[in-house]
Amino acid sequence: MEKICGAVRLSPESSTTARLLLPLTRNLSRQHGVVSFNRLVGVRLPHRHLTSLTSLTTHCSPSPSPPVSASVATETSAKVIDGKAIAKQIRDEITEEVSKMKNAIGVTPGLAVILVGDRKDSATYVRNKKKACESVGINSFEVRLPEDCTEQEVLKFISDFNDDPSVHGILVQLPLPSHMNEQNILNAVSIEKDVDGFHPLNIGRLAMRGREPLFVPCTPKGCIELLHRYGINIKGKKAVVIGRSNIVGMPAALLLQREDATISIVHSRTKNPEEFIREADIIISAVGQPNMVRGNWIKPGAVIIDVGINPVEDTKSPRGYRLVGDVCYEEACKVASAITPVPGGVGPMTIAMLLSNTLISAKRIHNFQ
Amino acid sequence: MEKICGAVRLSPESSTTARLLLPLTRNLSRQHGVVSFNRLVGVRLPHRHLTSLTSLTTHCSPSPSPPVSASVATETSAKVIDGKAIAKQIRDEITEEVSKMKNAIGVTPGLAVILVGDRKDSATYVRNKKKACESVGINSFEVRLPEDCTEQEVLKFISDFNDDPSVHGILVQLPLPSHMNEQNILNAVSIEKDVDGFHPLNIGRLAMRGREPLFVPCTPKGCIELLHRYGINIKGKKAVVIGRSNIVGMPAALLLQREDATISIVHSRTKNPEEFIREADIIISAVGQPNMVRGNWIKPGAVIIDVGINPVEDTKSPRGYRLVGDVCYEEACKVASAITPVPGGVGPMTIAMLLSNTLISAKRIHNFQ
Repeated sequence: MEKICGAVRLSPESSTTARLLLPLTRNLSRQHGVVSFNRLVGVRLPHRHLTSLTSLTTHCSPSPSPPVSASVATETSAKVIDGKAIAKQIRDEITEEVSKMKNAIGVTPGLAVILVGDRKDSATYVRNKKKACESVGINSFEVRLPEDCTEQEVLKFISDFNDDPSVHGILVQLPLPSHMNEQNILNAVSIEKDVDGFHPLNIGRLAMRGREPLFVPCTPKGCIELLHRYGINIKGKKAVVIGRSNIVGMPAALLLQREDATISIVHSRTKNPEEFIREADIIISAVGQPNMVRGNWIKPGAVIIDVGINPVEDTKSPRGYRLVGDVCYEEACKVASAITPVPGGVGPMTIAMLLSNTLISAKRIHNFQ
Repeated sequence: MEKICGAVRLSPESSTTARLLLPLTRNLSRQHGVVSFNRLVGVRLPHRHLTSLTSLTTHCSPSPSPPVSASVATETSAKVIDGKAIAKQIRDEITEEVSKMKNAIGVTPGLAVILVGDRKDSATYVRNKKKACESVGINSFEVRLPEDCTEQEVLKFISDFNDDPSVHGILVQLPLPSHMNEQNILNAVSIEKDVDGFHPLNIGRLAMRGREPLFVPCTPKGCIELLHRYGINIKGKKAVVIGRSNIVGMPAALLLQREDATISIVHSRTKNPEEFIREADIIISAVGQPNMVRGNWIKPGAVIIDVGINPVEDTKSPRGYRLVGDVCYEEACKVASAITPVPGGVGPMTIAMLLSNTLISAKRIHNFQ
């Protein structure tokens, strides 16, 4: 069992359970039921837009670092933001609310997922979503269509789910086969059931002061939820978001701004990203570049939310790879005041927020407080 | 005649006509036919959110500075971004295109403006818009309703204009009387005719990579157009937007990001705005705080687009006030490489962009290239 960062001690003010030693090992990845779902984030991220940043990662080896001695371990100061524990807490809360709703008005929230084609990874994500729904008492509906089905067939199912009162959230698993127009299909999902929150009308409301989105996209919502649940103050802080994707970076920046942070958005065309990152009190990274953000890019005491889940080769792992974030964890955990591990940080939050959005939708549709 | 900043020389690479000396005097404000319209921007900006920044303006006196000697005048290095000249150029281009469209397909673009109540300033803005339409050959339609009319009456006119094929743009003059729900009324304008570009669906598309808004809000569009027409490179530059209003700051930041700038958005909750502003290659300020941005906040060579149009007391002016920007012009013009004057910078661009959006709408509806 090989240590990545040595023993990391949760400080007493941690909002998670008791003070505990959390040895971060590569075996952790096998303990996480949702790891394969987590990788959805990595897969969707715009790697191709970050070629200019990639060269900066060469010094932080993506291969396992040598075992950390006890004396080195004491250097680490960052609180580990335990996404797995928080996600569990949120699921428990959802379970309770779903049950309350069922008892009070006889309605069970329902999530419909449409899967087109035979991609193994997509099938895994859909299975995980289904399992997650079951675990909190949300009904799940699944449609599997063959790779060569028509756009019209997909649109027909979306239309049926839009009209179905037992469905409160609709999710089309991406990517779609190349012969389909993704925008047409996503736009067909009723805005009231768009639990992914990717509809431009939702994004517009998210961007505007005085407007409220119907749904906040799941991964960025999960990032902010982690900050909230760990009592990390956002108002007036300098926040840097690394990456400007529609599904993570951009909405994360908008959310931070809604909470009165001063945001800067760093991307592939930013000449010296480290200049921005060094000034940040809060860093949210979502670029899909293993170990891109180095320890000396981080202001002492900064809080790091690492959305990247990147497989890197690891011959010592039975799988031949392990998962690392965008931030060089072994360096960052010595400088930051709090940091999400990968895996076990943001990943488990995404699916918890999907369940949360489905519950919110059902409550809104049935006017249940 | 009292000089504010002395003689400012347009450098040879200026995209406006010939090299010329432009003495910036307070009399300039009287030469501008659209000054009263310009103030719309100042009036709409969220002054109340900037109390924490206001105190920073105390050293830059809002009263006229003493006459500048010839030797001081040579210190100024900034190119003056002549919004009045660019706006005229754009109006000339629109005039030509409107005429071409009329000759080719017999369609004249039309803009409908709805004015509710008796506010003098609103009446002036509407009159200026009407005059601007006439000057480029766009038809204008005006509806004036009494202060005490109902929301339903306003909605009825909007609905009629939505259905009217001779109307390609609809504008509801703000502010509306307090008994009306502004959001309801603005949402009623068909997205295809929302030439103000304030609909959340438009803003969402503006924020999203791979999506295109139907209309870009006029003032931020004017800011970017000024940068383009002066050949100022945006890609890879550090840009700071001061102010996060729905109508200027936020969409301006989104536009800069679309052009690959690295954006930071400074607002009333930003603790040390000057720290961000000092790093910026491009500054767009839209806060409505006279002379807030000081000369020593500006990186040498930065480009400044000043959206603020703020009346400050001036006992020497026949009106008793003069207009100044958010940026302390007399200091900034010695440090920046290019700067918009106030008035005569962004102001005239807003109405030019409204005409541009109306033309774009007519072309799109009639599928005319």
